[in-house]
Amino acid sequence: MTPTRTWQLQSTVHENNIVSLALVEADLPALGPDDVVVRMEAAPINPSDLGVMFARADMDTVARDASAAALAVRATLSPEAMQAAAGRVGLRIAAGNEGGGVVVAAGTSERAQALLGNVVGIRGGAMYAQYRCIDAHQCLVLPQGSASVDAASCFVNPLTALGMVETMRLEGHTGLVHTAAASNLGQMLQKICLADGIPLVNIVRSMEQAALLRRIGASHVCDTSQPAFMADLTEALAETRATLGFDATGGGELTSQILAAMEAAANRNAEEFSRYGSTVHKQVYVYGSLESGPTLLHRTYGMSWGVGGWLLTNFLRQIPPEKVDRLKNRVASEIKTTFASHYTKVVSLAGALEADEIAQYSRRATGQKYLIDPTRA
Amino acid sequence: MTPTRTWQLQSTVHENNIVSLALVEADLPALGPDDVVVRMEAAPINPSDLGVMFARADMDTVARDASAAALAVRATLSPEAMQAAAGRVGLRIAAGNEGGGVVVAAGTSERAQALLGNVVGIRGGAMYAQYRCIDAHQCLVLPQGSASVDAASCFVNPLTALGMVETMRLEGHTGLVHTAAASNLGQMLQKICLADGIPLVNIVRSMEQAALLRRIGASHVCDTSQPAFMADLTEALAETRATLGFDATGGGELTSQILAAMEAAANRNAEEFSRYGSTVHKQVYVYGSLESGPTLLHRTYGMSWGVGGWLLTNFLRQIPPEKVDRLKNRVASEIKTTFASHYTKVVSLAGALEADEIAQYSRRATGQKYLIDPTRA
Repeated sequence: MTPTRTWQLQSTVHENNIVSLALVEADLPALGPDDVVVRMEAAPINPSDLGVMFARADMDTVARDASAAALAVRATLSPEAMQAAAGRVGLRIAAGNEGGGVVVAAGTSERAQALLGNVVGIRGGAMYAQYRCIDAHQCLVLPQGSASVDAASCFVNPLTALGMVETMRLEGHTGLVHTAAASNLGQMLQKICLADGIPLVNIVRSMEQAALLRRIGASHVCDTSQPAFMADLTEALAETRATLGFDATGGGELTSQILAAMEAAANRNAEEFSRYGSTVHKQVYVYGSLESGPTLLHRTYGMSWGVGGWLLTNFLRQIPPEKVDRLKNRVASEIKTTFASHYTKVVSLAGALEADEIAQYSRRATGQKYLIDPTRA
Repeated sequence: MTPTRTWQLQSTVHENNIVSLALVEADLPALGPDDVVVRMEAAPINPSDLGVMFARADMDTVARDASAAALAVRATLSPEAMQAAAGRVGLRIAAGNEGGGVVVAAGTSERAQALLGNVVGIRGGAMYAQYRCIDAHQCLVLPQGSASVDAASCFVNPLTALGMVETMRLEGHTGLVHTAAASNLGQMLQKICLADGIPLVNIVRSMEQAALLRRIGASHVCDTSQPAFMADLTEALAETRATLGFDATGGGELTSQILAAMEAAANRNAEEFSRYGSTVHKQVYVYGSLESGPTLLHRTYGMSWGVGGWLLTNFLRQIPPEKVDRLKNRVASEIKTTFASHYTKVVSLAGALEADEIAQYSRRATGQKYLIDPTRA
């Protein structure tokens, strides 16, 4: 029997500077010929999900929302966060960017019918739900023997890591720098770079994280907790000539430090002094916001530099669809190796609304990752 | 008789964190067949020259350099400034990016000989000098009746203003935002935009500057000294749909404010809410550093944004030489109208080393511009 209703987590920003995240029941859309219904069994809580769930609220203000009819939590937004959320005031946004599950119903088309019973990974919001209705051709079908948990994180992290490498190629760079490099995403990126022969400079925050990366084959790991960090980073950049960085932290000095070290490396490799700094273009994309403060750019790196936002969905729109398919196929075929993810805790939909769980997963600590299993009571 | 020696201003950063700017005599290079010698009569002190002259030193520490044999001043560099200047330690750099003068000697080639007696504008360093030897085809020959003072600023500001417009076209934007907009450069940009039908949003710091721009035809002027600045800016950006900014200030919040106002304007014009902010690409290039502090990016403008350095010489290398020639020809033909510059004070080479003059011209105040006349005693 085709499900027609689902419990799901919905986030709403209200006029009074409050964001409310609630577990509510909603209708599923009518099943079109090309659609399938996926019974969601595993959906990760990624940093990008936290923005949707809590709208940059002050996480110290999270409390049970007694005013709501449903099970819900609320938190307070600063004026700046409220301004950034202006476009979504009053809208109910169903959270969860990606997840894995089993196709339990299908429209009449051949393509949809062929998916019945398959484990698939899907993306596009409303994944923190018992069921999700989606166009069949948006499903990433995993090889036989895969479980929903394998499919849970098959879009955001794998395609982000592959997207970084593609961006590097498209923009004419030949090496990469990555921060928060011990994350699931960072480990995937290191594995891809090893397989594809791309020099990668990993930036981590502790010796444990450095050791973890070295165990999977990293040759350049720079640790911000070490006094020699800037010297180490400059050395690694001079060796690799990496001129493109991806920074997950966003706030603070790290983006600027990377650019400064790239400039120092470029000047070390340069043949003559240029009065406006090196002419080597140095680029850092900010793709996350683990540190919520402002990005500080000291501009001590000449004039050939750039900083910008990088978002997977925008990137995927910029490249040809065949290319996107090629990247997805690589993910499916390497889902248990290169693109394997690790989770530290599994919670139910209601469990994701427990204050102590929120306190944990909203810390965005590297190496800690929550999974929501909507089949759990 | 062909001059073989010249007095010139040379800047040197020393190991001991000191920059010294000295008036010294130097040999001119031997005159090649295609070279000419220009008797320099007018060279502006642009913000970009200050970086060469003083290497981001603390300008409160400027003092007569008694240790030098020549007439000289010195100033102290912070560790950060010293790091940025690492590549030029011990090098004597002859200052002055551009200037105008008269061709008084020429090599044997037809092209060089044809320039004898002409008023030309030239660029490339070592312009704060009595004489400058340069390849004839690098000279911009001004129309009959022009004076050296007309030629003084015919490269940096005019080509920067034209380069901003070209960058806008190359990168697919349709309108511009400009800060420090009441400057010589800003007025040129406004005149170009009026002539070419390009929407321009001018950002100024006072009502006087706003009035000045309105007198030359500006329709969008936003004043940071007004409480309604952000609302005015958002309104102007929604109207013009300008998504490319050029910021001369660099340090502080202005770059981030422009991006935030662009995002607010884009969301106002958007048809539906996008959870990661608008997909309209918003770009600000930092082309100056009137404010020397760090650039603060608050990242409240989604993920489709970029900030970067913009440098005229890099830009001119990126476009085809024919295009550069076309821009230069436009400058020559409009040198007394669109590209006319105004100066507040003229000093000699020695005068540029007087402490009270340095205190004035290093302030980089909008509307105040020094000219060096090396023919003055």
